[in-house]
Amino acid sequence: MVGGRYRPLTGPEVERIHTLVLDLLADLGLSQITPSLEARAVAAGCEVDGAGRLRFPRALVEDVIARTRRKFTLHGIDPAHDLEIGGQRVHAGTGGAAPTIMDFASGKYRESTVADLYDIARLVDRLDNIHWYHRSVVARDTKTILDLDINTTYACLSGTTKSIAVSYTDSASVRAVMPMLDAVAGGEGKFRERPFCTAVCCHVVPPMRFATESCDALEAAVEAGMPILLVAAGQAGATAPAALAGAVAQACAEVLAGLILCNIIDPNCRGIFATWPFVSDLRTGAMSGGSGEQALLSAACAQMAAFYDLPNSVPAGMTDSKLPDMQSGGEKGYTISLAAHAGASMIHESAGMHGSLMGTSFESYALDNDLLGAILRTVKGVEVNEDTVNFEVIRDVVLGEGHYLGHPQTYTRMKTDYLYPQIADRRSISAWEEAGARDAREIARDQVSAILADHYPSHIPEAVDRQLRDAFNIILPRDRMRAGNGIW
Amino acid sequence: MVGGRYRPLTGPEVERIHTLVLDLLADLGLSQITPSLEARAVAAGCEVDGAGRLRFPRALVEDVIARTRRKFTLHGIDPAHDLEIGGQRVHAGTGGAAPTIMDFASGKYRESTVADLYDIARLVDRLDNIHWYHRSVVARDTKTILDLDINTTYACLSGTTKSIAVSYTDSASVRAVMPMLDAVAGGEGKFRERPFCTAVCCHVVPPMRFATESCDALEAAVEAGMPILLVAAGQAGATAPAALAGAVAQACAEVLAGLILCNIIDPNCRGIFATWPFVSDLRTGAMSGGSGEQALLSAACAQMAAFYDLPNSVPAGMTDSKLPDMQSGGEKGYTISLAAHAGASMIHESAGMHGSLMGTSFESYALDNDLLGAILRTVKGVEVNEDTVNFEVIRDVVLGEGHYLGHPQTYTRMKTDYLYPQIADRRSISAWEEAGARDAREIARDQVSAILADHYPSHIPEAVDRQLRDAFNIILPRDRMRAGNGIW
Repeated sequence: MVGGRYRPLTGPEVERIHTLVLDLLADLGLSQITPSLEARAVAAGCEVDGAGRLRFPRALVEDVIARTRRKFTLHGIDPAHDLEIGGQRVHAGTGGAAPTIMDFASGKYRESTVADLYDIARLVDRLDNIHWYHRSVVARDTKTILDLDINTTYACLSGTTKSIAVSYTDSASVRAVMPMLDAVAGGEGKFRERPFCTAVCCHVVPPMRFATESCDALEAAVEAGMPILLVAAGQAGATAPAALAGAVAQACAEVLAGLILCNIIDPNCRGIFATWPFVSDLRTGAMSGGSGEQALLSAACAQMAAFYDLPNSVPAGMTDSKLPDMQSGGEKGYTISLAAHAGASMIHESAGMHGSLMGTSFESYALDNDLLGAILRTVKGVEVNEDTVNFEVIRDVVLGEGHYLGHPQTYTRMKTDYLYPQIADRRSISAWEEAGARDAREIARDQVSAILADHYPSHIPEAVDRQLRDAFNIILPRDRMRAGNGIW
Repeated sequence: MVGGRYRPLTGPEVERIHTLVLDLLADLGLSQITPSLEARAVAAGCEVDGAGRLRFPRALVEDVIARTRRKFTLHGIDPAHDLEIGGQRVHAGTGGAAPTIMDFASGKYRESTVADLYDIARLVDRLDNIHWYHRSVVARDTKTILDLDINTTYACLSGTTKSIAVSYTDSASVRAVMPMLDAVAGGEGKFRERPFCTAVCCHVVPPMRFATESCDALEAAVEAGMPILLVAAGQAGATAPAALAGAVAQACAEVLAGLILCNIIDPNCRGIFATWPFVSDLRTGAMSGGSGEQALLSAACAQMAAFYDLPNSVPAGMTDSKLPDMQSGGEKGYTISLAAHAGASMIHESAGMHGSLMGTSFESYALDNDLLGAILRTVKGVEVNEDTVNFEVIRDVVLGEGHYLGHPQTYTRMKTDYLYPQIADRRSISAWEEAGARDAREIARDQVSAILADHYPSHIPEAVDRQLRDAFNIILPRDRMRAGNGIW
C-alpha cells in the first residue's frame, strides 16, 4: 500500500524547509560528537568549528542523501513477516518506551515488566495489521541497563516472529546481545544475513546536540549490521521550535546528521529517517501526542522523507487519553490516517499507546489493530479501471433488477474491495442490545484473553533457549512461556 | 480553512469517472421525473427516451456545471454564523435522520422526539466546531408528515442561531413552513433575503430514478429561495455499484441531474452537490458508515466536487458503533479527516451519530465537537514563512538557553498555532488518576449537562413565538423552553 496522496506542504514549502535543513547542518552543526565519530566524520569531509560543533557541508549532505539506501528489507524473525521499506510503502507497528501499563485484571496503571513485554509480543504476533514489534514498554523489573537490554531483547525475540526493535543506549548492550541474536538466527554470523532486530537510537538530544552514549551505540549497531532507527524526538516549544515548520526542519537536520554518520561507518547501512518531533501543550509544557498539531508534524515529516526518498518513520497514534475511549480512538484515527496518507514508510507508536506514550494497555493493541486495518484500507485507495468504472454494469442493473445485490461484480468486489473488521461492531442497534450492549473495549478484552491464553510461539528451539538461559541473566521464567501457566 | 491536499484519485482517474458520469446522464438517464419538471427540463434541452427516462445531453450538463453558483453564503439565523460555501473551504456540521437517541439519563436507546431535536439544537448552538444544525433525529412524537416538518423546523429554529436544515419530502411542507421562516426572519419576504434554512432533498431513489414527491419538494424549495442539499444516497453493493469508483460515478450523475433541474427552475439557486454514497457490509447488506471504504467514497466524492468546483457535501463521522467508545472515535477520526483533507465544503453527519445513522447520543455532539476542532486544525495546515522557517530562531536557542520555552516565538505561536481542546484529557496518568480516572464520555456528560441546563436561546421574540403557536400545531411546550424546567 503506497501513500503520498496527502501532501500537507506545497513543493516550494518543502524546498524552503530543505534549505533551512542544509543551513542548520552546514552553518550551525551539532555539539558533543564522540571522539571516534568525530574522527570518522572529519575524514569524510565534515568540519569542527571553534565551539566544537560538528558541521556538515551542504555537498556532503546532498551526497549522502543521494547515495544512501532508498529501500531495504526489514526482516522478520520469520521471513513471512519481512517488510519492504522505502518508496512510500506504508507500514504500521508499535514503538515507544512506556514505563507503565494498564493492568489487564485491575484496569489500573502499574509499572511494566519483562512479562508484559513478552505478552505484548505474543499479542502483536497475532494481530495482522501491526507489522512489527518494536518494544513499547520498559521492563521496570530489571536492575541494570545491561539486564534491561538483554531481557528486552529476549522477551521480544521469544514472543513474536515479526521484526523486532530494542532501544540500545550504549555500545556494551549492542555487543552483549549479538550472540543472542545470532543464536536465534541459527548460529554465529547468521543475524547479519537477515537482521531482524532494529536498534532504536536517539542519537541526538535536541536541539542540535549529539547524545554521546547513544552515538557509541549507533556505531556498534551499524557495525553489527543492525537496521538503525535514527530518532530525533524534539518537543516543539521546548526542545524544538514552537513553529511547526521549524520543528520539522530541525528534526530533519538532526536525523540527517545521524544518517550521515551511519553512512560514513557503513555505506550499505540500513538507516531509517525517524523524524519524531513531538508537540508540547504550551500551557503546561507537557507533551500532547494526540493533538492536531502532532498529526501535522508527523505528516509533514513523512512528506520531507518522501522528498528525500528515504526509508522513514514518523510517530502517530500517541493518544493523550489514558483509556481506550472515544478520545483515544479519535486521536489515533486522525493522526495515523494523516501519517499514512502522507506516505510514511513506518508509523511507529501506532498501537497500544496511551497518556502521550507514558502508558500502554493490552486492549488497545487489539483495538488499534482493527483501526489500522481500516486506515490501511483507505491507503489502498479507490481502484479505477474498466471494471470499476463501467457503464454496462450500471445500465444492466438500472434497466434490469433495479439493485446490485445479485450482480456478479458485487460478489467479486465483496472479496477484493471490502475489509471486514474483527472488533468494530456493525450490527443494528437492536441486535447489539440483545447481545449485551458491549463497547469496543470489552470486545477487545475477549480477543486479548483468547490470544494470550493460547498463543505461545515456539520458534526458538528449547535447546537454543537453554543455551540463552545459560549465557544470559534471563528473568522471564521458562514456565511463564507455556499455555496453562495460570496467568492468562 | 481550505482542504484539497489529500487527493484519493489521480487527474486521469477523475476524468475517467467524469466521462462515465456524462455517459450515464446522456445515454441512460433517470426514470420517474414529475410532469412539471419534465416539461421544464425538455424545454431546457433534455430528452425523454422511449422508456420515459429523462436524459441530459452532455453539452447541457457541462453548461450547467460551468454556470451554476460556485459559492454562496449559507446564512445563519444570526449573521455571526454565516458560512461561505465553495472553493474547498471546509466546514462540518450535523445531518441525518436517526429514529432513535441514547437517553441521557438511562443510557438506553429510545425513540427520538421533538424535545430531543430542540435540545440537540441548543447543544450545537454552543459547540463551536459544529458549523450548522441540520436536523439529525426524527421527531417520532408527531403524527403526520406535515406536523413532523412543521415541528422539526420550529425546534431547530428555536434552539440555535446557526444555519439549519430540514428534510422536506413534499411540497406542501415547504409551503407550510414558509410563513414560519419569514416570521423568524422578520416579516413576509424576509427569509428570501437571508435564507437560513436549507431544504434537504433526496431527489433520487438510486439507482438512477427520481423520487417523485421529493422532486415536488425540490421545485417548491428552489422557488422559495431555500438553499437545497441535493442528496444521492445510494448504497454500494445494493443501490449503487459495489465497486467504489462506480458508486462515486453514479452518485455524481444522480446529484448533477438534480442540480440541473434546480438551475432550470432558478439559475441563481443555491444548490449543494451532496454525493452521499454509502457502504454496505456485503456479508449482511447492512450499511457500514464507519468503514474505510466509506472514508474513500466520501473523500473521492469531495474530490469530484472540487473537480466540478461546486459547493458540496459528503457524509463522514457515521460510526457503526452504538456508543461513544474507541470504535466511534477511530471511525469518526479517519472518515472525517479524509473528507476534510479532500476539501469537502460541508461534512454532514460529522457530529452525534451512531449505529450507521440509526442512533444519536447527546454526549457525542460534545465529543465530536472536540474531535472536529482537532481535525480542522490539521486542515489549517503548517504555516511556512520567514518566521516559522527561521535559522536565527534555532541558532539563538541552540547557542543560548538551549531550549525554546522562553523564546518570544513560543509565546506567539502558543496563541496562533495551537488549539486547546475542551474534552480531550492531556494530563499525566497520575494527575488523571487523582482526578477520578474518568473517560472522555464522562467529561462530555458534564459539558452536555452544563449547556442544556443553562442555554435556552431567546432570539425568537415572545410575540413571534406566540404568533407561531397560534398559526401552527406546535407540540413543544413553551415551558420546556426555559431554564429550570426540571428536565435538565
